[in-house]
Amino acid sequence: MINIEKNYSINARRMKKSAIRQLLKLASKPEIISFAGGLPAPEAFPVEEIADIASDVIKRDGKKALQYGATEGYSPLVEELIKWEKETNDIDIKPENLIITTASQQALDLIGKIFIDPSDPVIVERPTYLGGLSAFNQYGAKFIGIPMEKGNSGIDMDYLEQELERLKKSQEHYKFVYVVPDFQNPTGLTIPTEKREKLIELSEKYEFLLIEDSPYRELRYEGTTPELMYKMDNTGNVLSVHTFSKIFAPGMRIGWVVGNEKIIDKLNTAKQAADLCTSTFTQAVTAEFMKRGLLQKNIDKVKKIYKRKKDLMIEGFKQYLPQREDITWTEPDGGLFLWLTLPKYINTDKMFDEALKENIAYIVGSAFDCYGESLNTMRINFSYPSEDDIVEGVKRLANLIKKNIKD
Amino acid sequence: MINIEKNYSINARRMKKSAIRQLLKLASKPEIISFAGGLPAPEAFPVEEIADIASDVIKRDGKKALQYGATEGYSPLVEELIKWEKETNDIDIKPENLIITTASQQALDLIGKIFIDPSDPVIVERPTYLGGLSAFNQYGAKFIGIPMEKGNSGIDMDYLEQELERLKKSQEHYKFVYVVPDFQNPTGLTIPTEKREKLIELSEKYEFLLIEDSPYRELRYEGTTPELMYKMDNTGNVLSVHTFSKIFAPGMRIGWVVGNEKIIDKLNTAKQAADLCTSTFTQAVTAEFMKRGLLQKNIDKVKKIYKRKKDLMIEGFKQYLPQREDITWTEPDGGLFLWLTLPKYINTDKMFDEALKENIAYIVGSAFDCYGESLNTMRINFSYPSEDDIVEGVKRLANLIKKNIKD
Repeated sequence: MINIEKNYSINARRMKKSAIRQLLKLASKPEIISFAGGLPAPEAFPVEEIADIASDVIKRDGKKALQYGATEGYSPLVEELIKWEKETNDIDIKPENLIITTASQQALDLIGKIFIDPSDPVIVERPTYLGGLSAFNQYGAKFIGIPMEKGNSGIDMDYLEQELERLKKSQEHYKFVYVVPDFQNPTGLTIPTEKREKLIELSEKYEFLLIEDSPYRELRYEGTTPELMYKMDNTGNVLSVHTFSKIFAPGMRIGWVVGNEKIIDKLNTAKQAADLCTSTFTQAVTAEFMKRGLLQKNIDKVKKIYKRKKDLMIEGFKQYLPQREDITWTEPDGGLFLWLTLPKYINTDKMFDEALKENIAYIVGSAFDCYGESLNTMRINFSYPSEDDIVEGVKRLANLIKKNIKD
Repeated sequence: MINIEKNYSINARRMKKSAIRQLLKLASKPEIISFAGGLPAPEAFPVEEIADIASDVIKRDGKKALQYGATEGYSPLVEELIKWEKETNDIDIKPENLIITTASQQALDLIGKIFIDPSDPVIVERPTYLGGLSAFNQYGAKFIGIPMEKGNSGIDMDYLEQELERLKKSQEHYKFVYVVPDFQNPTGLTIPTEKREKLIELSEKYEFLLIEDSPYRELRYEGTTPELMYKMDNTGNVLSVHTFSKIFAPGMRIGWVVGNEKIIDKLNTAKQAADLCTSTFTQAVTAEFMKRGLLQKNIDKVKKIYKRKKDLMIEGFKQYLPQREDITWTEPDGGLFLWLTLPKYINTDKMFDEALKENIAYIVGSAFDCYGESLNTMRINFSYPSEDDIVEGVKRLANLIKKNIKD
């Protein structure tokens, strides 16, 4: 073969294999209890309903559902989503405000494509969603990380405002601010209403585009849901990213973006060249699932399962983890993850091999840090493992940690 | 909203809405007979079989088929494709030589992403597939167009060799040569064996990567199929792009790329950030469709339908089009399209409005030309319109052309 290296683009040279994907391979042995993945619980998939709907939809609408579709989305699904956004988020949108994507990962990729030139600053939370970091990294984003405030309220707003002021003074043009406001991946934290209001205020003052990526919003087990920032904003500065992966089935690969029609139109142009359209078949099945009123029922079912698992996990942490000031964890009101912080001298990257030997797996916190730091942290998933595995896994994790504590 | 224009990337500023998509909207009125689209015939979709398989697959394998899948592809489908490539193209590949993509458009996008930096030269046929041009254009490719040789054998090899020699002398580093060798979109032409051998020879001599994009290869109605260039090559210089869109159903959004494992691995890394994985659901349905031996049967059925339509179209051209030296068309042995060349003074872009008034539509040839020329040509699709519409549409097209002939 020719020397292919010299043909690769700068983008390609910059690409890194996802750290999570590598860890997941290591963690896939049957004897390992894995808190590593971010997978929905397979026992929660509405298998019978989907089997019936898939058959019905193909028999009834096969000529459309098997054909190429519009880049912006299959119109019956677009209609259902407009109703859904009204019912669940109380927002009024038109078809021009919405584009269906090949799950939210494609939305993040297209956002990277239309906004980021190499070395463009992009503001993100520390830690933040790894898939966002890798999508933006492929276009050469230079990350500016905003730490979380102490406690459970997420992003440090004072730090953010100082950073925005500094960028303004130095006339550095950053492309957007990216946040995961609801039960964040990886921390499980939710940005409360006052901070959301402040974010909107700052987006007007400093004139920035705010990307709210919200895959877990519907999976709330306690408390009340703050408004979507897309709703709080009146100026069109917010782009809101959603997905069916956690509330229906990731195998469908369907997400959607809500935003100003100008940006949606640009995403549409980018998507034309990226994959022409998302599967019309899975869009048709999803539209019918919504039309039959099954989505909210499914969410209610999933929430019950995940709440039990989350409670079990937290109980286990309280019972088995060393109770010390330098070992803390988040107690999320929803979502799939919690975030465990260990004494500063414990490096979870280095501890990972030892964890595998103890047949327990997690994702190293550094994978979610745009600077590759946060070495004493880990992400713990509670949606995928069985209840028995949660109980046993917490014991193994506790033993592992105890062995690594120095005093 | 903030002034969003100043936030767009150079990529985004370069993006153009697909010309075809705009024309298709205009051509979608029911009174218009459209030879414009590139859609498979909906009457050929195996609706009943897919309905049964979808239901069976979900009931049997729902926990896997609805979950996230591996980026490289759902393993039962990968296995079927390895067998398929052996049976149909007589090539021996391993899983590392194959990646499943969200149809071939995503393959072209990922190829653009991993190879093209702004202003990188890329060599293409004139005309060539519009979706290839738009995918590569978004990454800033500078196209070098190689015309077709007079007659029916496709790309002008002498012209290509001269161009390669010129590029070598001027030390201009181009990223790849892109061809659609089988029943090319838009011309319907096939590159014969001798030219394929020459292409492989040149790829070694001039050390270039050769992309063969072959969505229509299995749809041959006459003659014998030349070998896949991936098979003819022994050095790993060929990347071979395929799709289920024309042989099964485009709504599945499944394609695959065969190539050297190094390049496949790089495509995999790019795909991780682009959409994590292609729909496991549609991959599972497609794998089962193959496993039940239905794919070849479906291809045989589709071929019968398209051959009749193609023959009808050519008969109509012979009967109704002015028989003159300056009006010519290709007579493809397969695929979905033929290419019509009119007298030099006829501009098919300008004639398009008139065509719509006559209730007939085509795609302007200039859309497929990397320099936007070839103004006296048009692409004609024969797979989608009904047989009655083909007969009536050719009459309308003939009338339109007669009106525009000056002598």
